[in-house]
Amino acid sequence: MTGRFARRRQEVGVATQDKGATALLVTDPRNIAYLTGFRGSGGAVLVESDGEAVLCTDSRYELQVVEQAPDVGHVISREYVAGVLGRRRGPADAPLAIEADDLTLTAVAGLRRALAGVGGDDAQIIETSGLVEQVRRTKDDDELAVIERACGVADRAWTHLLTSGLIAVGRSEREVAADLEHAMRRAGSDGVAFDTIVASGPNGALPHHVPGERVLSDGDLVVIDFGAMVDGYASDCTRTVALGQAPGRLIEAYDVVLRAQLAGVEAVRPGIACSDLDAVSRGIIDSAGFGEFFGHSLGHGVGLDVHEAPAVSTRSTSTLSSGDVITVEPGIYLPDLGGIRIEDTVAVIDGDGGTSLTTTSKAFSVL
Amino acid sequence: MTGRFARRRQEVGVATQDKGATALLVTDPRNIAYLTGFRGSGGAVLVESDGEAVLCTDSRYELQVVEQAPDVGHVISREYVAGVLGRRRGPADAPLAIEADDLTLTAVAGLRRALAGVGGDDAQIIETSGLVEQVRRTKDDDELAVIERACGVADRAWTHLLTSGLIAVGRSEREVAADLEHAMRRAGSDGVAFDTIVASGPNGALPHHVPGERVLSDGDLVVIDFGAMVDGYASDCTRTVALGQAPGRLIEAYDVVLRAQLAGVEAVRPGIACSDLDAVSRGIIDSAGFGEFFGHSLGHGVGLDVHEAPAVSTRSTSTLSSGDVITVEPGIYLPDLGGIRIEDTVAVIDGDGGTSLTTTSKAFSVL
Repeated sequence: MTGRFARRRQEVGVATQDKGATALLVTDPRNIAYLTGFRGSGGAVLVESDGEAVLCTDSRYELQVVEQAPDVGHVISREYVAGVLGRRRGPADAPLAIEADDLTLTAVAGLRRALAGVGGDDAQIIETSGLVEQVRRTKDDDELAVIERACGVADRAWTHLLTSGLIAVGRSEREVAADLEHAMRRAGSDGVAFDTIVASGPNGALPHHVPGERVLSDGDLVVIDFGAMVDGYASDCTRTVALGQAPGRLIEAYDVVLRAQLAGVEAVRPGIACSDLDAVSRGIIDSAGFGEFFGHSLGHGVGLDVHEAPAVSTRSTSTLSSGDVITVEPGIYLPDLGGIRIEDTVAVIDGDGGTSLTTTSKAFSVL
Repeated sequence: MTGRFARRRQEVGVATQDKGATALLVTDPRNIAYLTGFRGSGGAVLVESDGEAVLCTDSRYELQVVEQAPDVGHVISREYVAGVLGRRRGPADAPLAIEADDLTLTAVAGLRRALAGVGGDDAQIIETSGLVEQVRRTKDDDELAVIERACGVADRAWTHLLTSGLIAVGRSEREVAADLEHAMRRAGSDGVAFDTIVASGPNGALPHHVPGERVLSDGDLVVIDFGAMVDGYASDCTRTVALGQAPGRLIEAYDVVLRAQLAGVEAVRPGIACSDLDAVSRGIIDSAGFGEFFGHSLGHGVGLDVHEAPAVSTRSTSTLSSGDVITVEPGIYLPDLGGIRIEDTVAVIDGDGGTSLTTTSKAFSVL
């Protein structure tokens, strides 16, 4: 465990030096977890260029930080940034790298005060973006195994719902969401990766519908988007099922989405541009005449965040490489009628191309 | 509904003018929900000084935004900030207020590009802090009713767990957390306000312990911290229960925490300084000799965020006023032995002082 975190910090330390700084102030909570193992909700870490680090959190986490992050220095204070800066090695006014995607203007003002407090008034602040996220993007074998476990947990919960008849006419979206989240918890999930989406009938046309009191009805398609969380890592999966005889136009659209999704997963391999991958699925939906009803991107990276690098969209400039974990999730949303989305979490593996870590059936199913 | 959002925007518009700007760019998702009703996860709102507003979100929310936020203008674009700036009234280089607590350095760079795109290169950017949050802090009757419902949902779920014998020797922390979250969902919660804490035995000494595989054992105190979510509003409640014969020192500490909590709730009234309220409970714990084991603040505001203004701590500079909703949650955490926290969500009401919205028993209970 310890070796893993130290290795990541060394990699980040090198990237920090490349930016001209002697240390990186890490404030993003998931980056803190990635670099130290600490999973509290408040804190800051200073990573020196050789990977040594000090972590500051408040007294709520005084014991937890020792357990979770044994190989970094600890400071207990409510002033996280001042806490780590007080332990910085070398001159206080050496160039300091910060996370521009995380630090708010208010936090930057606090940082300047904290720097002044340690005699670092003149320190150059170097704004960086994605320094840790780029290292995070490539999952090692341990991380892949954890994400696979999270996907397995979600798969088992989904199968439980299907075999127990819990997705049925007469049940509310809210009840189905509650049962699925409970099933994920019981299958081993630490909470949920995001709020479960259960969008039935016309609500399915809203890609991010919040499950409500609507009762599942005969002829509905039901879009269900759910994710488990295991050891801090997320899974992300969507299935769409039918209750009774759905409208013909939706059945037609289902077939298009399924073809687009299968072709997308098939096209996943190291070396493909993310925009090209998006185009594979989008092209199928466009050709079938549903292009205007697929407004979102094809996918996104999954890891400690349920949305992280790389983006898989028309505008993405990333190229897939081994160790990426992404979603492939085309959809068609027909206003007032309903929607379809089919999504897997897919690992990019040298030699294998793409491997779906979520594995439940995607065939058109009438419950 | 519409009138409520327009009223809030007018209030914010006046505050914006006071800061010398003609419009406020709102990027905090909860502030967006508060000012428009829109509850999607991505978007930006521009509030003009008279309260008129335009909201930009992406195509995922194209239908949802019309339903949830009917009384503001809509732009559908992935470039949220550029989208709203393009619809700004008056000169593009008029002073623009922004939310310094929400905008990251990266977002500010994007804002400057978006301003340049509409000819607003020279616009003065006025950093503001808490403009919307100050309005949000004072809950109106509708909001109080919703928070009371969220508290009722959590109360019913807690009672269900107790009466069903689900907190028992031999069950894991994870199972208890799963059952409580499921019970809240079934009682009417939209997901959970935060990840449920179930901290048994020695884990109770970690105020923010993540429930794990530890099995509840005879002699444990179990700290359970849980919150429901209703119409976007949170509840926040903690109870600590005993399984069998707990160590005498913990029973003694329980009595101290309970006295501190009851005295704290009793002291809640419009006009009391938050730091004085913190001192009421902290003084009781200090006098009993447990002061060093109560490291966190007494409480915090609750609303759309589970942690919002006002802070109730030794360092708080706020004074309670009618319409505040806060937690009162003293605790004692004894390393390696266990912990106690007792917490209610309390509304501050003129004439009434403080009214606990969470209402389940706080008496020392052996299950």
